[in-house]
Amino acid sequence: MNSESMSSFRVTPWEVEGVVDYKKLLEDFGAYEITGELLSTIKEIAGELHLLLSRRIFYAHRDLDLVLKDYIEGKRFFLYTGIAPSKSTMHLGHITPFILTQWLQEKFKVNAYIMIPDEEKYLAKKTESLRRVDELVNRTILDIIALGFDSDRTFIFKDREYIKHLYTAAVVVARRINWSLVKAVFGFNGETSIGLIFYPALQIVPTLFEKKRCLIPYGIDQDPYFRVQRDVAPKIGYYKTAGIMSKFIPGLEGIDSKMSASKPETAIFLSDDPKVAAKKVMNAFTGGQPTVKEQREKGGNPDICCVFQWFKILFEPSNEALEERYRKCINGEILCGECKIELAQRVEEFLICHQRKVRDAERLKDKFLYDGKLAQRMWNWEFKY
Amino acid sequence: MNSESMSSFRVTPWEVEGVVDYKKLLEDFGAYEITGELLSTIKEIAGELHLLLSRRIFYAHRDLDLVLKDYIEGKRFFLYTGIAPSKSTMHLGHITPFILTQWLQEKFKVNAYIMIPDEEKYLAKKTESLRRVDELVNRTILDIIALGFDSDRTFIFKDREYIKHLYTAAVVVARRINWSLVKAVFGFNGETSIGLIFYPALQIVPTLFEKKRCLIPYGIDQDPYFRVQRDVAPKIGYYKTAGIMSKFIPGLEGIDSKMSASKPETAIFLSDDPKVAAKKVMNAFTGGQPTVKEQREKGGNPDICCVFQWFKILFEPSNEALEERYRKCINGEILCGECKIELAQRVEEFLICHQRKVRDAERLKDKFLYDGKLAQRMWNWEFKY
Repeated sequence: MNSESMSSFRVTPWEVEGVVDYKKLLEDFGAYEITGELLSTIKEIAGELHLLLSRRIFYAHRDLDLVLKDYIEGKRFFLYTGIAPSKSTMHLGHITPFILTQWLQEKFKVNAYIMIPDEEKYLAKKTESLRRVDELVNRTILDIIALGFDSDRTFIFKDREYIKHLYTAAVVVARRINWSLVKAVFGFNGETSIGLIFYPALQIVPTLFEKKRCLIPYGIDQDPYFRVQRDVAPKIGYYKTAGIMSKFIPGLEGIDSKMSASKPETAIFLSDDPKVAAKKVMNAFTGGQPTVKEQREKGGNPDICCVFQWFKILFEPSNEALEERYRKCINGEILCGECKIELAQRVEEFLICHQRKVRDAERLKDKFLYDGKLAQRMWNWEFKY
Repeated sequence: MNSESMSSFRVTPWEVEGVVDYKKLLEDFGAYEITGELLSTIKEIAGELHLLLSRRIFYAHRDLDLVLKDYIEGKRFFLYTGIAPSKSTMHLGHITPFILTQWLQEKFKVNAYIMIPDEEKYLAKKTESLRRVDELVNRTILDIIALGFDSDRTFIFKDREYIKHLYTAAVVVARRINWSLVKAVFGFNGETSIGLIFYPALQIVPTLFEKKRCLIPYGIDQDPYFRVQRDVAPKIGYYKTAGIMSKFIPGLEGIDSKMSASKPETAIFLSDDPKVAAKKVMNAFTGGQPTVKEQREKGGNPDICCVFQWFKILFEPSNEALEERYRKCINGEILCGECKIELAQRVEEFLICHQRKVRDAERLKDKFLYDGKLAQRMWNWEFKY
């Protein structure tokens, strides 16, 4: 699979360029849309369906059917996700995999492993220093904990601190991945640092933490890693990892913009002052008409409106209310200013509430990192070879 | 420096092909012959000169002059060497860097760091399994200790066990080494595993253990690593490493043969039964004539005789006796059988003595690995970044 073969857009773990055609991406990457049948199975087991699933924000998968089959047969599975700190703390574009992972953990009562690669972005030259990464790591961990994970079923680990437990497995994996493969899959070139070239082996290791199927909720840009995992894992006696992939969350500058740590005005950071965040929302790009008069006459276009998308993805739990907003928008019954005020309020409330949980998370941190049930087990874990 | 540019021979850390032209190698690698002046300085400080130096087995260097200058000015330096277990325990072809390192430590009273990369040969596909490597590691460490290192000034570490202390520094180093560089310097290609591609960063890390000059005795095949080190170290505020390089020790099949773990008859292993080893010596290639008569008439050629070379490199401490043997050989006064019997005896005695020291080394092992003075310090060492 060569990311360079995609003509109009390009998706790698380090760069997303152009307007992403999500269907094309599935063909390129060899993954599948999540069927209604799969969603029904999840709903049957979980008793409900998370909005990120029912609204197809997580829209694609590999082997989700096998994961559910294993679960139904009592074999269980485990969850894995992660985030590499670079220039900033987490923003709203980062949290959907964590929200879904937490929800799946709660509903399926399974272990979740969360990797904090505190070297990746440095090796990818997306950040200037390891010290800068270190400054971000603690807050990143607290942001994750604040999302509600189970402290006895979740292990959060930093690569550089946990490396002794990762390295042997990474060596076994790395032996089976050659330059030709990573060049093709990740688009590496002569300038790529040898640390980044090795890094995929490390990101694959947590899929080997248990001899069960691993389900990874992730942004579709991370897909190359797990395609490589599926190539290697069977050769060393492990399951190909399953995955459930999300679309990108649009930034505030437009439906095809990305939230970017280097452009703070495009993103809401979990550490933003709630009032400042609300102001950013008020400056968001919408699908509205240039004038109130035109808006009333022609209606707006919620499909290209990032305000509407944010309601859909994170800030409007009620399907009825979301549909009502959609209808009102296209009929010109609601103005962009009104939508933005409502979204700004919800974002502000979310941040106030999240930041309170972050303060509470401080005292839980050690359980996730060191002495919760799963963490304790993982500090004794060794890769069998 | 591209190892592929060398036409008639090829020297990389994983392959040595063809007849090595040691002078050409220095030009290719950018190193220098050790001058008589440098040897005099060492002799002045040490009170004597090790045979491996005076006989120019260690024949080349980089910055040895600066190391000696630092030492004389009271700044001191530190030693570093290592060996990666692959298919067998150490053979005589492996021990010269350790013998010289031990001697330098004794004479200069400096720290020595000994790396046991218990992943490299696995990643280079020179061994089939990590388990095979593990089986060899303990004996390798005992063989090294038996050579007489100072247990409070020597730290022996295994990569996979010590990785937590190495990894951060390796990341900092790796960021500054890209694919183009390792491709050129090591001759890596599309088939090279991403673990081996990253490995040079790890092998460089011990040169950063102290903020002093590092002197590395090594076989010239390891040179690519340290050329890369000299490229990277100044960029991160460390000294370019110094080095002192040895020629290869010929195998028993001929002056241009190598001792090879995969051809046990070509090498004397430190774990060989002394009697078996003696027999191998009796089958060695010599520079003798086909018949006794011709040998008496024309004399032999000690310059192409591996038996003579072994005397010169390891088994004849007396310069006078060595010269006498040389003279007698070219004059036909001594037959190959006689030389072989004498060498076989010395090899047998060496192994009996070495193997006794190996048994003693068992109880010293923990000091070198964990609780000698230097080892203790190194288990608290963290790379500053």
